[in-house]
Amino acid sequence: MQREAILLTPGPLTTTLRTKLAMLRDWGSWDSDFIAVTARVRKSLLNVIQGQETHVVVPLQGSGTFSVEAAVATVVPPSGHILVLDNGAYCKRAAKISTMMGRKTTLVPTPEDKAVSPIELEALLVKDPSITHVVLIHCETGAGVLNPLHEVAKVCEKHNKGLIVDAMSSFAAIEIDARSTRFDALIAASGKCLEGVPGMGFVFIRKAILDSCAGNNTSLAMDLHDQYVYMEKTGQWRFTPPTHVMVALAEAIQQFEDEGGQPARLKRYQRNYQTLIEGMAALGFKPYLDPSVQAPIIVTFHAPAHANYEFRKFYEAAKKHGFILYPGKLTEIETFRVGCIGAIGPIEMQQAVHAVALTLKELGIASGAPA
Amino acid sequence: MQREAILLTPGPLTTTLRTKLAMLRDWGSWDSDFIAVTARVRKSLLNVIQGQETHVVVPLQGSGTFSVEAAVATVVPPSGHILVLDNGAYCKRAAKISTMMGRKTTLVPTPEDKAVSPIELEALLVKDPSITHVVLIHCETGAGVLNPLHEVAKVCEKHNKGLIVDAMSSFAAIEIDARSTRFDALIAASGKCLEGVPGMGFVFIRKAILDSCAGNNTSLAMDLHDQYVYMEKTGQWRFTPPTHVMVALAEAIQQFEDEGGQPARLKRYQRNYQTLIEGMAALGFKPYLDPSVQAPIIVTFHAPAHANYEFRKFYEAAKKHGFILYPGKLTEIETFRVGCIGAIGPIEMQQAVHAVALTLKELGIASGAPA
Repeated sequence: MQREAILLTPGPLTTTLRTKLAMLRDWGSWDSDFIAVTARVRKSLLNVIQGQETHVVVPLQGSGTFSVEAAVATVVPPSGHILVLDNGAYCKRAAKISTMMGRKTTLVPTPEDKAVSPIELEALLVKDPSITHVVLIHCETGAGVLNPLHEVAKVCEKHNKGLIVDAMSSFAAIEIDARSTRFDALIAASGKCLEGVPGMGFVFIRKAILDSCAGNNTSLAMDLHDQYVYMEKTGQWRFTPPTHVMVALAEAIQQFEDEGGQPARLKRYQRNYQTLIEGMAALGFKPYLDPSVQAPIIVTFHAPAHANYEFRKFYEAAKKHGFILYPGKLTEIETFRVGCIGAIGPIEMQQAVHAVALTLKELGIASGAPA
Repeated sequence: MQREAILLTPGPLTTTLRTKLAMLRDWGSWDSDFIAVTARVRKSLLNVIQGQETHVVVPLQGSGTFSVEAAVATVVPPSGHILVLDNGAYCKRAAKISTMMGRKTTLVPTPEDKAVSPIELEALLVKDPSITHVVLIHCETGAGVLNPLHEVAKVCEKHNKGLIVDAMSSFAAIEIDARSTRFDALIAASGKCLEGVPGMGFVFIRKAILDSCAGNNTSLAMDLHDQYVYMEKTGQWRFTPPTHVMVALAEAIQQFEDEGGQPARLKRYQRNYQTLIEGMAALGFKPYLDPSVQAPIIVTFHAPAHANYEFRKFYEAAKKHGFILYPGKLTEIETFRVGCIGAIGPIEMQQAVHAVALTLKELGIASGAPA
């Protein structure tokens, strides 16, 4: 008998028991009780970004990637031209999606250990006026980089380009203020920093462009404009909502608000991050990123140089000690990742570091130091 | 304080506490424990239709409608021509989806109180050889009709047409045997007769056509071929799965198997249906369908003729007595619907009938008899 393993991943995350307990009831999706839950969640989500005046929010069934695809296909007209500054795996996925959606897409590589550059972005926009939209991954969890959303938004606004933000791993943890940061769409999901369970995403759409979105999307299930119009009219989802996921999200948001909202959540994740970084450094591990571009969301560490290291064994041993780590996603360097997010605090991070220490010992690895 | 209301709807349904309790744990989607759950569920799903030899099954995030769209776009090539015999709202939705997917679609109206006719189907296929695929809604819950899947499949096989079956509301309750009934794709979802919670669908695809599906779907999120290939290779979902929904489904399937599988489930639903029909008849209510075409899944009743009847009031009063009913979906006649499915038995149906009796009394409606 032991405590269930803590998830140190980019999601699904460890959630509170209170959040999970909310799922012990069945809800009629057509019923007024559930309609009220949907309305409350949508209002709270807008509050997170101070977006009541400027944006609407549209929840969507499926994983966060479903919402990214839905956002691109709903917000960008078929004639649009999308620019993605690529500093990681999720940038590449966004570009793949926009290409598949039939939108002209330009992917410009930038180093995956650096934040994307608003200056480079501006130069690219000036050079190619046919670009209509920019897609930005706010926290690129491929390596863990925090990209400069506000500065990118300023450049897009100045050049009158649409901006679509994948804020999957940053929303509710990193500050996003829709009053001062202009974006056409911003996407996040239930199972990330709001600490709900996975199963739905949501997209903020700027009111000023909402009407122009009608008819862009050739999908029925993923048309966010259609979903929005129906939801405004009826309070209901167009198609069966993941009711248990939704009520768990409502409960998670309540705890988020009780904790003190985004600033409090960021502070907790920063303490998790500091505890992790310091503890791992003492074991010899070296983070891949410079602290100046590192988001306190997920940390990429270099694999230890020791011959006994093999990710699969390292993972299984750490799991036996109660912690689920995550593989690296870099193509050229061997790494692994450790998340700082979820319903955990510095005490759990200390335990995680201790579990890694025991794991190294068991595998006969003297130090986590990379080559 | 009172028991939570029982859902007499086409879904989400009332589930067992045991199913919901499975959601009290967080799972790493990349972890071997969760990979094992996915594998076990996929195997069990194939067993329900005896499809181990002939089909594969691909789970997909989102509601059942997401899986319908994914199935059409994955299985039917862009040059395909889809025929839908339309006897209800879900037929119309399937036709809308196939039109939006850019597939040529022919929608042939048939009466919504009748099952679709395999003879008419055959005539249509002979008349227009350009038709490549037929879409059938097995149980059309718009009115509650059971369509003749086996006979339709025979006609499609004879004329070498692809068949896509929306078995959302029939799967696991009505017999479907892939060994004797040929279909290219068959779609169902977690929150229906398997009595899981809503949040994911799954599509059975015939092995013989699987390879030909590559590249048909222009969506990244909903490409079932891509999802299949990745899942076979890694055991994982391509994008974050609804982990809690999935483990609840695994638990629900365990109970389904323990109960005696599809034959036992059908028997329970038939007893629910009989209890409902007889009880409602005693109150003067008249079902819309002839029993010969009625599936024991959801029953459409004519609205009472009495001037005091108004669905909204009727619904709210029945809810106070512990039962969530469902609005009608017929365009020309006023009706309401009562589901027979979910983790309930004849005792709950007796209580439901009693709740309706009390509701009539409170609203001053002497009889449920229609005009």
